[in-house]
Amino acid sequence: MTRVVVEVMLKPEISDPQGQAVLGALTRLGHRGVQGVRQGKRFELEVSDPVDELAIQQIADTLLANPVIEDFTVQVHPPAPANARSPLPPDRLTS
Amino acid sequence: MTRVVVEVMLKPEISDPQGQAVLGALTRLGHRGVQGVRQGKRFELEVSDPVDELAIQQIADTLLANPVIEDFTVQVHPPAPANARSPLPPDRLTS
Repeated sequence: MTRVVVEVMLKPEISDPQGQAVLGALTRLGHRGVQGVRQGKRFELEVSDPVDELAIQQIADTLLANPVIEDFTVQVHPPAPANARSPLPPDRLTS
Repeated sequence: MTRVVVEVMLKPEISDPQGQAVLGALTRLGHRGVQGVRQGKRFELEVSDPVDELAIQQIADTLLANPVIEDFTVQVHPPAPANARSPLPPDRLTS
C-alpha cells in the first residue's frame, strides 16, 4: 500500500474568500505579521501497489480538483523499507 | 516575506465523511486501486520576516486546526536566495 498526497489550491488569480476570512480574523486578533492566506484542500489516498500514476493524475485532475480554477500537485510516498530510518523524498508531479 | 504552509488533517481515529464520500465516488467510477481517502485542509500563509515560529504554531493550534479532532504540521519555507537553483527543504514542525 502506497500513500499518495494530492494538494489542491485555487489558482493564484482566483479570489479566495475562505483565505480572506482567515486573514481578516488573524488581523483582528493582532497577528499582523501574516500578510496573506490561501486555503486549499489536501487528500491522502491509500493506493494498492503497484501505483498507476497515470490513473492517480487523472483522478486528481477530474475528481479532486477543478482544473478551471485550481492547481494541484501529486506526491507519491513509496512504502518505506522495513529497515529505513526516515522516509524517502516523495516523487512530485505538478499539474 | 516567507511562505508558511499549515496542513490540517483529522486525527486517524476520527471518522472522515468527506473522505469516505470521495472514496465511494472513486469506487463507483471503477478506481478500485484506491483503498482509503482522508480529506484535510492546507493553508498557505505569507508572513513578514522575521517569522515568529511560536506565533505561527499558536495560530495553527488555535485558529486553523481544532486540536481536539485534528492534527497539523507547520512548514516554514525560507525565501530562496537570489542565486539558488532549488528551494531549501522546509523546516517542519509537527503538532
